[in-house]
Amino acid sequence: MAGSSFGELFRITTFGESHGGAVGVVVDGCPPGLEISQAEVQSELDRRKPGQSDITTPRKEEDTIHILSGVFEGKTTGTPILMLAHNKDVRPQDYDALKDLYRPSHADFTYLAKYGRRDWRGSGRASARETLARVAAGAVAKKYLRLHAGVEIVSFVEQVGHIVATCDPERVIPKDVESTIVRCPDAAAAEKMEALIREVQSEGDSIGGVIRCVVHGCPRGLGAPVFDKLHADLGKAMLSINAVKGFEVGLGFGAVHLRGSQHNDPFVVDEGGEVSIRTNNAGGILGGIASGAMISCRVAFKPVATIAKEQDTVTTSGTPTKLAASGRHDPCVLPRAVPIVDAMAALVIMDHLLRHKAQNG
Amino acid sequence: MAGSSFGELFRITTFGESHGGAVGVVVDGCPPGLEISQAEVQSELDRRKPGQSDITTPRKEEDTIHILSGVFEGKTTGTPILMLAHNKDVRPQDYDALKDLYRPSHADFTYLAKYGRRDWRGSGRASARETLARVAAGAVAKKYLRLHAGVEIVSFVEQVGHIVATCDPERVIPKDVESTIVRCPDAAAAEKMEALIREVQSEGDSIGGVIRCVVHGCPRGLGAPVFDKLHADLGKAMLSINAVKGFEVGLGFGAVHLRGSQHNDPFVVDEGGEVSIRTNNAGGILGGIASGAMISCRVAFKPVATIAKEQDTVTTSGTPTKLAASGRHDPCVLPRAVPIVDAMAALVIMDHLLRHKAQNG
Amino acid sequence: MAGSSFGELFRITTFGESHGGAVGVVVDGCPPGLEISQAEVQSELDRRKPGQSDITTPRKEEDTIHILSGVFEGKTTGTPILMLAHNKDVRPQDYDALKDLYRPSHADFTYLAKYGRRDWRGSGRASARETLARVAAGAVAKKYLRLHAGVEIVSFVEQVGHIVATCDPERVIPKDVESTIVRCPDAAAAEKMEALIREVQSEGDSIGGVIRCVVHGCPRGLGAPVFDKLHADLGKAMLSINAVKGFEVGLGFGAVHLRGSQHNDPFVVDEGGEVSIRTNNAGGILGGIASGAMISCRVAFKPVATIAKEQDTVTTSGTPTKLAASGRHDPCVLPRAVPIVDAMAALVIMDHLLRHKAQNG
Amino acid sequence: MAGSSFGELFRITTFGESHGGAVGVVVDGCPPGLEISQAEVQSELDRRKPGQSDITTPRKEEDTIHILSGVFEGKTTGTPILMLAHNKDVRPQDYDALKDLYRPSHADFTYLAKYGRRDWRGSGRASARETLARVAAGAVAKKYLRLHAGVEIVSFVEQVGHIVATCDPERVIPKDVESTIVRCPDAAAAEKMEALIREVQSEGDSIGGVIRCVVHGCPRGLGAPVFDKLHADLGKAMLSINAVKGFEVGLGFGAVHLRGSQHNDPFVVDEGGEVSIRTNNAGGILGGIASGAMISCRVAFKPVATIAKEQDTVTTSGTPTKLAASGRHDPCVLPRAVPIVDAMAALVIMDHLLRHKAQNG
Repeated sequence: MAGSSFGELFRITTFGESHGGAVGVVVDGCPPGLEISQAEVQSELDRRKPGQSDITTPRKEEDTIHILSGVFEGKTTGTPILMLAHNKDVRPQDYDALKDLYRPSHADFTYLAKYGRRDWRGSGRASARETLARVAAGAVAKKYLRLHAGVEIVSFVEQVGHIVATCDPERVIPKDVESTIVRCPDAAAAEKMEALIREVQSEGDSIGGVIRCVVHGCPRGLGAPVFDKLHADLGKAMLSINAVKGFEVGLGFGAVHLRGSQHNDPFVVDEGGEVSIRTNNAGGILGGIASGAMISCRVAFKPVATIAKEQDTVTTSGTPTKLAASGRHDPCVLPRAVPIVDAMAALVIMDHLLRHKAQNG
Repeated sequence: MAGSSFGELFRITTFGESHGGAVGVVVDGCPPGLEISQAEVQSELDRRKPGQSDITTPRKEEDTIHILSGVFEGKTTGTPILMLAHNKDVRPQDYDALKDLYRPSHADFTYLAKYGRRDWRGSGRASARETLARVAAGAVAKKYLRLHAGVEIVSFVEQVGHIVATCDPERVIPKDVESTIVRCPDAAAAEKMEALIREVQSEGDSIGGVIRCVVHGCPRGLGAPVFDKLHADLGKAMLSINAVKGFEVGLGFGAVHLRGSQHNDPFVVDEGGEVSIRTNNAGGILGGIASGAMISCRVAFKPVATIAKEQDTVTTSGTPTKLAASGRHDPCVLPRAVPIVDAMAALVIMDHLLRHKAQNG
Repeated sequence: MAGSSFGELFRITTFGESHGGAVGVVVDGCPPGLEISQAEVQSELDRRKPGQSDITTPRKEEDTIHILSGVFEGKTTGTPILMLAHNKDVRPQDYDALKDLYRPSHADFTYLAKYGRRDWRGSGRASARETLARVAAGAVAKKYLRLHAGVEIVSFVEQVGHIVATCDPERVIPKDVESTIVRCPDAAAAEKMEALIREVQSEGDSIGGVIRCVVHGCPRGLGAPVFDKLHADLGKAMLSINAVKGFEVGLGFGAVHLRGSQHNDPFVVDEGGEVSIRTNNAGGILGGIASGAMISCRVAFKPVATIAKEQDTVTTSGTPTKLAASGRHDPCVLPRAVPIVDAMAALVIMDHLLRHKAQNG
Repeated sequence: MAGSSFGELFRITTFGESHGGAVGVVVDGCPPGLEISQAEVQSELDRRKPGQSDITTPRKEEDTIHILSGVFEGKTTGTPILMLAHNKDVRPQDYDALKDLYRPSHADFTYLAKYGRRDWRGSGRASARETLARVAAGAVAKKYLRLHAGVEIVSFVEQVGHIVATCDPERVIPKDVESTIVRCPDAAAAEKMEALIREVQSEGDSIGGVIRCVVHGCPRGLGAPVFDKLHADLGKAMLSINAVKGFEVGLGFGAVHLRGSQHNDPFVVDEGGEVSIRTNNAGGILGGIASGAMISCRVAFKPVATIAKEQDTVTTSGTPTKLAASGRHDPCVLPRAVPIVDAMAALVIMDHLLRHKAQNG
């Protein structure tokens, strides 16, 4: 209700500030008997952690995850799983200069307006550091979905600035995504993206982009009618990630130019005699419910707000001032955001899997 | 949980199928003492109702709303408000031909997959007729927001097919929206849109478009950190509307091409000595929380799935067949969808207003 | 959130005031394919309706239930079921005298304190008339539980005033309950109870009592650890019924006098070689989770607040006055409350059945 | 949904097993700006901790609480508060003997039935050790209620076995409760209770009792109509505490013997000219909503299931066996349960305070 929980049946609650004691998550509702190790969760977190390449922030957090409850003898018990990472590389003094001003396009101003006070070390609760908790919870969901429902989720960077990858989303595999530091499976585009990010970095600036998320094997029937349509929940999940400004499923905004006769996906009988869908403009979801076809959606990230370039701003006491960030920040969040998008997709699908089982299982 | 409720504190639950007994909504959590009349709710519904112009479906539903509880002596009591409209122009025989086949890009196939059975009269629960319940609930929220929080919501058609309106979202007023039957405040564009819709209609086809939604006067501080960011909830709200495939806030997908130094909105001190934001690329929301600036978002609608043109499809027993719809349908849903977008925005803002009051009021 | 919904997965939302347009319920989350007719729901309602015998209020409401959505071709569709009864025997003038005073031990005073206004016709939303909505929803749950989980719920009047029935709860069957107008299966006690109720009625007074509720066949494993223990949810369900002041499970308050060695239920191997429980002091629930043994709980009802005897009270403007109710009221609610207790038990078990299936199914 | 969360707006989620890594709680929705220190929370926990006197279990847990998020510069930030205690005095070998059998009246059997596996060290998630998390969260709520709403909660032991305290609940103050190790303000009764507990302890047995909970200063209007009546939520809260078997508000089960004319509480005008209630048989709540009078309820605890006396039971493979517990357990949980009852009352009142503010504030 206060915004730190997500999901109904596979329900996560995250906590923690960027420079507080710890960041983590409670996962309630996980089916019992799922084998899960610290190492498995850690491997997902390592894809998100800072300092993994020279185009990411040099903040040195190991983000070592501890599983403190809900797992016994290597398997989930069905009761709440607590996972947390202690904050280590905390340098609040880096933020002394920011204590009394509003960083442009950050949440300083609105948090103060909302709560009357704020944790000014880093971005406090508004920090993207919170997303490590999502990735940890998502790792559990991904494992369950893979083992028990045959679901595979593959997200990748499709665009950085004006550079667009050329690849067939249906054929992208995790190995291809991990083969470049920008997490774009199109090697040629990846090279250009990397160059662009370095250029932006050297200018003390930042750049946005698009991540595509593909879900293979989503069981037919997941999703709910009316408000909790599968793509509505995916949309909310993605839009809740820091820096995300847009979401589309299937052709998305591209569908507005088309006629119904162009956009509709005809039903056909496939070689195996099964009813299938000839095209997949809908992105795998019809009326809010998974059709069994590949789910495909796209997530737009704005450029990171923290930049070294000097900007106009105002102090909390209302005096105009200048700001040139000296902290340790990413010129482009896309490479590190890929596992977050994966995680959010996994959390939505997992929740709807349990919901579907409850009513129709 | 089963998908027919929306909101946490201003919570609505809708019910009804397109050709069942009634369609309606229970609103729970409305503050007491709000003056609300049947006529006020009806006037919002009349903007959504079928047959309002010759570019909408000729289905003849008066959609007369009845308020059966929760209002006493003209004011809300604080207890659940039930509003419903009986279904009148029910012609299930129109759907006999559709009973045993899957309409392309409709929910027939996925509902059957989910529930093992379906109400084949019209689209049953998947029908856009359900949205009248949202508009009724939204009318109550809009009234409250206008009177008690100074919030005004203005949605309008910004694009149909390739035709894009030219207008400053900040200056559009409701009267301008209602001045054309397509609900586009740019009269010249409206004329072209209308022509395009008629052309598409004559071809037995359909066309998509974009609605922009603007919220004036949203109190600073509404929204929640992390998962229930204000734009994440707006996104879910909009994506849950039939035929919606994309959502963006502020510059949205347009932000991905920009540098941080271009996209960031500097804080300034305005003439009145107040802290304000020079540009509004963020669309009125920072870190998920309203900044006090105008909220602006865009909603992409695909072309309606029901078209008169012949299409390939398959029967429920798996035989390929052809379908040319003969029912009564809209060539373009955008004009009638404007009040639905209004309503969903009102429901989100209203819910967050109460949530904010609870914790920070 | 505003108090008119119950259940998480089998979720009901009730609406309506005693003298408004209608009273009813939306049931969301019901599994599809359940055969349910208006007549089946009506037969449960008839057990609750006023005027069924001369020891109940003579208010003449037929309480005819209408099913307006969610059921198609005689079966549930999986989407929201709307059931409502129009208010017919509405005589608001009966309440003119009550408009400006606080009836002792009624909710007039607190509703006014909460909402700043109230519907003074009857008890408005606080009227026990709301419980017809619970009984309607409970009828659907009971049917599902009987057919799909082998669960039978039997509630009966065990005590009225000082008269206590002697009967083995395990052996009471529905026919025995319905064999007397007080719904007590012990015929001798029933006769005394009836006499007591008539005596109280003739004195213009009212009397309380206890209903026992027994659940046979509750599947082992239903319930949740920690906060949503099965008996905690049953307790809340029962305590939410008008006039209920106490709840106990198993030996309840009787357990406080015992030693652990007396109260503990030893595990044994039964004749069929199955693990079973020798005694059932726990009332069928261990650690909040159903053990498979019969669930047994007791619900205490205070005497009805509305009495013909003259009482001291105060007007809304703060002047002392006298009140002698002239309306149409029950001297003892127990006989009509039996189906309500049945319904609340069914709603709790049904909800936990779906919750259990979601996580462990 | 999976049972480890409580409250809607002041929402807590607990985690942890008795012999896992840690036990704790996330509190989401706390208003910002509340001064709260580790020491304040600790002082409530110390009332619950094992080993505090020789009539409690000698398990040596310091239960040192760590606040790892949500508090900055000594005040709540409005974002999630994580509090946890590491498990120190863990001796899983104590439980080796229990690994393969079902302890009578414990949750071993039902957890295994539910989840297919269980954490057999201590009682895992079913351990009363979980309640330390409730007490920590309750400490925050109590502090807020005292400072910002003038609410004081006083719980005390009213009965142990057959020994009943004689004291006026309205006049009991915290100091009196803490003046005896059984937490009974009637010193004479306390002495007898203590003697009884020692006797029971020496016999290797256990004993039950009753805790009364009183809430002073609950603002008029808190609570909700219909399902979330204030006493229904209090009832659920108390019934969710380990070993609780019964709950009553006001006269509770005692009300069933009375006539309406005896039980009704007349309204009067008090000396200050305010409307007030002459008696308080209702226990401070009318129609589910606080009347402003003192709230009073009673909670029945069964005797602890773990006893040293030999009992019959069965192994998990279905062989009859004997069990005589050798662990470290309480002969009577009542003294340590007082702060838990306090905490649950505080959580319910706090949640309804925020809910009331949201709708009617």
